[in-house]
Amino acid sequence: MSTETADLARKARDASRKLQLLSSAKRADLLRAVASALERREDEIQAANDEDMARAAAANDVDDALLQRLKLKPGKVKQLADGARAIANMDEPIGKPLSAMELAKGLTLTKVTAPLGVLLIIFESRPDALPQIASLALRTGNGLLLKGGKEAASSNAKLREVIVDEFEAFGIPKECVCLIEGREAVADLLKLDDVIDLVIPRGSNSLVTYIQNNTKIPVLGHADGVVHMYVDADADLDMASKLAIDSKIDYPAACNALETLLIHDSLVATGGAAELMTALRAAGVELFGGPRGEKELKLPPAPALRHEYGCPACSVELVSSMDNAIDYIHANGSAHTDCIITSNQATADEFISRVDSACVFHNASTRFSDGFRFGLGAEVGISTSRIHARGPVGVEGLLTTRCLLRGTGQICDKDKGVTFTHKKLPLPKKEGLFKPGLVQKVSGAIALVANTVIVFKALFGRK
Amino acid sequence: MSTETADLARKARDASRKLQLLSSAKRADLLRAVASALERREDEIQAANDEDMARAAAANDVDDALLQRLKLKPGKVKQLADGARAIANMDEPIGKPLSAMELAKGLTLTKVTAPLGVLLIIFESRPDALPQIASLALRTGNGLLLKGGKEAASSNAKLREVIVDEFEAFGIPKECVCLIEGREAVADLLKLDDVIDLVIPRGSNSLVTYIQNNTKIPVLGHADGVVHMYVDADADLDMASKLAIDSKIDYPAACNALETLLIHDSLVATGGAAELMTALRAAGVELFGGPRGEKELKLPPAPALRHEYGCPACSVELVSSMDNAIDYIHANGSAHTDCIITSNQATADEFISRVDSACVFHNASTRFSDGFRFGLGAEVGISTSRIHARGPVGVEGLLTTRCLLRGTGQICDKDKGVTFTHKKLPLPKKEGLFKPGLVQKVSGAIALVANTVIVFKALFGRK
Repeated sequence: MSTETADLARKARDASRKLQLLSSAKRADLLRAVASALERREDEIQAANDEDMARAAAANDVDDALLQRLKLKPGKVKQLADGARAIANMDEPIGKPLSAMELAKGLTLTKVTAPLGVLLIIFESRPDALPQIASLALRTGNGLLLKGGKEAASSNAKLREVIVDEFEAFGIPKECVCLIEGREAVADLLKLDDVIDLVIPRGSNSLVTYIQNNTKIPVLGHADGVVHMYVDADADLDMASKLAIDSKIDYPAACNALETLLIHDSLVATGGAAELMTALRAAGVELFGGPRGEKELKLPPAPALRHEYGCPACSVELVSSMDNAIDYIHANGSAHTDCIITSNQATADEFISRVDSACVFHNASTRFSDGFRFGLGAEVGISTSRIHARGPVGVEGLLTTRCLLRGTGQICDKDKGVTFTHKKLPLPKKEGLFKPGLVQKVSGAIALVANTVIVFKALFGRK
Repeated sequence: MSTETADLARKARDASRKLQLLSSAKRADLLRAVASALERREDEIQAANDEDMARAAAANDVDDALLQRLKLKPGKVKQLADGARAIANMDEPIGKPLSAMELAKGLTLTKVTAPLGVLLIIFESRPDALPQIASLALRTGNGLLLKGGKEAASSNAKLREVIVDEFEAFGIPKECVCLIEGREAVADLLKLDDVIDLVIPRGSNSLVTYIQNNTKIPVLGHADGVVHMYVDADADLDMASKLAIDSKIDYPAACNALETLLIHDSLVATGGAAELMTALRAAGVELFGGPRGEKELKLPPAPALRHEYGCPACSVELVSSMDNAIDYIHANGSAHTDCIITSNQATADEFISRVDSACVFHNASTRFSDGFRFGLGAEVGISTSRIHARGPVGVEGLLTTRCLLRGTGQICDKDKGVTFTHKKLPLPKKEGLFKPGLVQKVSGAIALVANTVIVFKALFGRK
């Protein structure tokens, strides 16, 4: 491994610790300074983006989708600056008390949120991802190693420069946000599981799968989005058609787009199945059959039971019951987002309580499975991992916890050193409000008052 | 890979889904049935344990510590049964609402706790770990693959039998709790990252390290516990001695035992450093020096800056300031538990806010870093991982989350399908209390009343 790459990661860790030393207000001010710099230096940023666009346009096989993602459209820089300001204005994410307990007299435990540490973010050609991620990382006290797509090299370098140029005034080393270049450097970084705490790949499924297969560092992301929609016997068929179409057509390549439509058997005889298929086809969706769909609905065979089309196409399969539908989803889904369409509340409740997926929906488009739509403010990514963070992940995915214990000299002595009280305490508004010394003084004062009352009653009280 | 092992894991997953179908009350009843069975069949369990003890005693090199761990002492089975009952009585851990939000009119999102899925637990010679882990897993709806030490083979087989014999009456397949035998089977299981959700190794550091290096499945555990105690210039020296001794001597091989004592420079001239060292030596602790400790305190050199002794010995090093102490801890610690001894509240607050470890203590023994002492009820393990769960981990380490969205036919339509309200809702007591249909009916009724009032006013009201 190149020692240079490892050094960079360690410097990011050290810089992140300096960032964490800043007060919440200072970290917010830093973000506001970054926002102003983005606006002030918009011309430079646009010029760098023009370079990338020109280079991409001059390439032999110009890909329109790529150009779309690459382009910083008018108003975009302003929007990124506003985004940074919104993140500056959010509640302080670090040191937020999650639980508090008196373990024994004068011994108080508080569990608080803490920065995760150093994040490696790998994103493809969208340069606007860089300031968004950087804003989130700065607010949460995390160091960043960023690897962008080579098509956006000039934009990314300029955006990073504009951001880190603001660091000096706050005493933060520029290495707090590093830009990584080249595949070899990424391969090196993926080995640094002692320095990097989380990898977030933002891009194609193949990128996510490659990362997951090549590192011991935890990866936040999803390799597959094999999304199911089950149309129950009691479904409103108009609603079902509308939701199936939106789930597939709104953005066919998205991870939350519909891939398999499961239809209850009873809808074959009633003509409901045919109605659904006609509506989907009319919306431009190509249909393939699961084992039963192929035979009984005369559909061409789907490539596999578990298949992500990524285009306006989906599989259709028949199921004999909701149990059958749930088994099918558990067997062939990717536990990303699965949905039931039914007017029967009891059926919906059972589906929702039983389907073991990150997102389980009733009578809504699967496309709602998204951080912005879920109201998270900023989306770090969607996770199909079951640990740490699952589903659309906001700022909490960039945080971990610390347990803070404040004592007054207590020893353990094989659990005979203290008498455990394990008394749950109300959550303090801010960490650091529990001072066992102070609590003791207050309890002492209360005890003194109480004793005085007892003595007073004993002396003067009536029986 | 043996398909038999993979089959076992998949059967555990299927069985766990059946377990999740039971109501909370039924899952608690199952645990109570297990508790009664443990008591009823105590003789069988003791006989199996006697077999293990006899086999261990007959081995060539009898290890006293092993025999201690292996033995189910009188009263232990009763204690395990009581533990199972306590876990039965705890609040329902599944489906607990964590947040709730109205995304748009009639579209409600609830985030709830959910079982993690299938856990692989690898524990060494303590057979009492089996019923404890099984009780936690049954309450939280998780499937279990258990690999115990071969010394406890008879005890483990009997304990597992007693537990799973109760399953039939509840319709749960016995494979919900599987016992794995042989190293090969473990190696096979560690490859099943698509079926197993979490590995929890309970045992020596070398076991944990081996597991961490040989699987892509997330591992809950700590490979090192390089615990520091920093004695500040303003420390109460009597307290410091007492806490340093307890932190090292209470259980020298524990992960939360003291390994490095950092002493502020000023305590050399005052004689405080000598006092601390004398007290530690008098308590039977052998002292080794860090680079400065070796030179200035005339101590034999420590094996390394970062070293876990695991016996009544520790390193002693001098530091020039708290900053210096924190840098030393960040550079050489394992972010498990680190502690400051000082009477200066401001110094303590700064140490606590800056040290980036799972547990950060002030004026308390590092031995308190433990699930039972932290009041978690049952400890799943102590994690030095920064993601998912950090520090002593209770039942929450066996849970993940699901996002449940209840709609009334909403489509996304490139975010023009609904008007987002993103209104935070009060947490429902229980998942399933939000029924958008119901909310709509209620709103409808309110609107009807409101309209009636308006019409009534228009017809009969005075101006």
